Amino acid sequence: MKEIAKKVKSDSFILMASSNEMRNDCLQNIINNLNKNREYILSENQKDIENAKAENISSSILSRLLFDEHKMDTVIAGINDLIKMEDPIGKITLKRELDAGLILTRTTTPIGVIGVIFEARPDALVQIASLCIKSGNAAILKGGSEAKLTNRALFESIKEAVLEAGLPENILIQLEARSDVGELLGCSEYVDLLIPRGSNSFVKYIMDNTSIPVMGHADGVCHTYVDEDFDLEKSVRILIDAKTQYPSACNTTETLLVHERSVSKLLPKLNEAFKTAGIKVYADKEVLSYFDNADAANDDSFHTEYLEKTINVKSVKSIDEAINHINTYGSHHTDAILTNMDANADYFMSRVDSANVYKNCSTRFADGFRYGFGAEVGISTGKLHARGPVGLEGLCTYKYKLYGNGDIVADYANGNKEFHFREL
Amino acid sequence: MKEIAKKVKSDSFILMASSNEMRNDCLQNIINNLNKNREYILSENQKDIENAKAENISSSILSRLLFDEHKMDTVIAGINDLIKMEDPIGKITLKRELDAGLILTRTTTPIGVIGVIFEARPDALVQIASLCIKSGNAAILKGGSEAKLTNRALFESIKEAVLEAGLPENILIQLEARSDVGELLGCSEYVDLLIPRGSNSFVKYIMDNTSIPVMGHADGVCHTYVDEDFDLEKSVRILIDAKTQYPSACNTTETLLVHERSVSKLLPKLNEAFKTAGIKVYADKEVLSYFDNADAANDDSFHTEYLEKTINVKSVKSIDEAINHINTYGSHHTDAILTNMDANADYFMSRVDSANVYKNCSTRFADGFRYGFGAEVGISTGKLHARGPVGLEGLCTYKYKLYGNGDIVADYANGNKEFHFREL
Repeated sequence: MKEIAKKVKSDSFILMASSNEMRNDCLQNIINNLNKNREYILSENQKDIENAKAENISSSILSRLLFDEHKMDTVIAGINDLIKMEDPIGKITLKRELDAGLILTRTTTPIGVIGVIFEARPDALVQIASLCIKSGNAAILKGGSEAKLTNRALFESIKEAVLEAGLPENILIQLEARSDVGELLGCSEYVDLLIPRGSNSFVKYIMDNTSIPVMGHADGVCHTYVDEDFDLEKSVRILIDAKTQYPSACNTTETLLVHERSVSKLLPKLNEAFKTAGIKVYADKEVLSYFDNADAANDDSFHTEYLEKTINVKSVKSIDEAINHINTYGSHHTDAILTNMDANADYFMSRVDSANVYKNCSTRFADGFRYGFGAEVGISTGKLHARGPVGLEGLCTYKYKLYGNGDIVADYANGNKEFHFREL
Repeated sequence: MKEIAKKVKSDSFILMASSNEMRNDCLQNIINNLNKNREYILSENQKDIENAKAENISSSILSRLLFDEHKMDTVIAGINDLIKMEDPIGKITLKRELDAGLILTRTTTPIGVIGVIFEARPDALVQIASLCIKSGNAAILKGGSEAKLTNRALFESIKEAVLEAGLPENILIQLEARSDVGELLGCSEYVDLLIPRGSNSFVKYIMDNTSIPVMGHADGVCHTYVDEDFDLEKSVRILIDAKTQYPSACNTTETLLVHERSVSKLLPKLNEAFKTAGIKVYADKEVLSYFDNADAANDDSFHTEYLEKTINVKSVKSIDEAINHINTYGSHHTDAILTNMDANADYFMSRVDSANVYKNCSTRFADGFRYGFGAEVGISTGKLHARGPVGLEGLCTYKYKLYGNGDIVADYANGNKEFHFREL
């Protein structure tokens, strides 16, 4: 594995210096190859699906595993969007004259080599590979084993596109063995960033077992807080969306906090809506009696990411109690306030310490596509580097370039010269 | 320690939501208190200096430890510069309409709680505390024990300033016991970022023993490459500056790479200059004979950060060999090319994978003050988040705020509505 990673690192320097045209050509080749190999790829996916069914894989995994005409068209549309996007590399984000003839610039660059370990979702392979190519990053990819045949077929199309574009062959590597992941974690010399996607315990395992920087989120305990003055109809609609639109997503609301003055207005109607939607409730003792399908919540409940149609409900005495609860129990992912009071929204959004803070909408909006980033490699709940949905920008770093003409520091240290700092 | 860190975290949320005026008031109070307590602080520093002398501390540490009228005036001038700088918090870096009435913004925010472990340099305490306050970050500070009395006196002035400004008392904490550092590493629940400064082995120890993100650099193996066409006089001057202007700094050049066609032009004159400056050379066998004060270099030499007047010299057959050497042996800190060929400079600067890449100037320029950042908390050789000298910007993260009016994701998933993404 170290030998492989070393080759990827070496080729990454060539990719790093490649032009946007070359990288876009490669993306166009991927589209062409996917279309050319469409039937083969879909038939390989059918085999993966049959194998998964034979092993009694859950229906939610099956729906992620499926790669049909519709998903093929969607990933191709996504690559087309990426081609149209401006080059994220080589952007000058600072240009400053330090002194006459001594010019400092800060320029965006690729990060280098990125290791992405993702779930059994073939569309994720294409999306991640395309984002890495557009941003000039080499990538070592390991997808879920249930998608093995589909991923292999997709990767052939992608790899061929890389070579056709004249890019070096080791800028994209696919790993297939689970044991490779463990070895990848030890390649800190060659891998600049790891992006693990998957279950909480898996992401946590990665974070605890590597010295390579990790970007991602271990869990998504998201909250919606209903304030003392709120719109009943909109709030019920938002809460149903936030819990049921895709219960296994990380941006689903797991805990509803209700201002005590809003309890009697909101909960009777919400109980009906929850019953219709088949939502199970864990409630604190102040509000337990409002729900037909409810048990008592305990402290553990508020730490739980259910990933199904189950929600905690708790009443709070004040907006400050709500904020404090979110900052204590939440995972700093996405939290919303439903309110008619603008000042309260501002107060909440400045004090809740999360990547995404929302006013009067569903927590489910936290997603790179919905933010207009084209696609995302994942959502980060870390505060360093990229936070929230991570698209092209999050796959770039920058370097400082200083252009001089014989300049030395001694001249400034001994007072012969002085910096004057002028923005250009 | 966990109890202390928890209190700091809790108070950090109040600081996070404070106004620029309040934070500037606090900085002004620090200036006032430093002036008020000037004599006391300087006399405490005298005691530290005497204790250090009694323990035979090296002169380079003594010069860092000294806090006299001049250093006091310098830190006060630095705080004045910070007050004048615009608020780094609350800047809107993206504003986008996702659909009618659904507005996304990305706003800069403080990171939260930052742990800074730094060397025995009292001016660093004031600089770091001021940067954290200006950027709305709470900080847990641990300075070198040799500066204990000075740091205690400085911290009293700073803490008083915090309280006078009406900011919560736990936003700044000073640790004094070495054992506290070990415990701090375990406070990942409350500390968002660690910035260690000091020896390579110390920074490496911190990086290997915490799950808290670490920003900094373990070592500074910087290079200067002399290309095939270069200005002799300027290059010798730059090389002397890059090696001797402050040999123990991280941005000092440790290895000189010379294009083989430039060897006979550069090295005779350089040998004279190196002799005058008292520089010891480790040279590869191709160039060893050019130097009077030289030994043969081995592979280890090229990994070594000497921190003294010692330099490696190696000839290379091409610019690519130079780039490859730097990317392999360097620490991705600061590397320079000395050349008369602009195309070669561009080639070098785009392919060398370092935070700072320079043309025709000394590597010693890599520094937050010289870049016009006002001050720095350190230099990062990591590629994530801040890279290079880290000032106010590097102490900030951002959050996404989404303002809706009852918006739900189901409307977009089922095709009732479509995103239109319009920049505002």
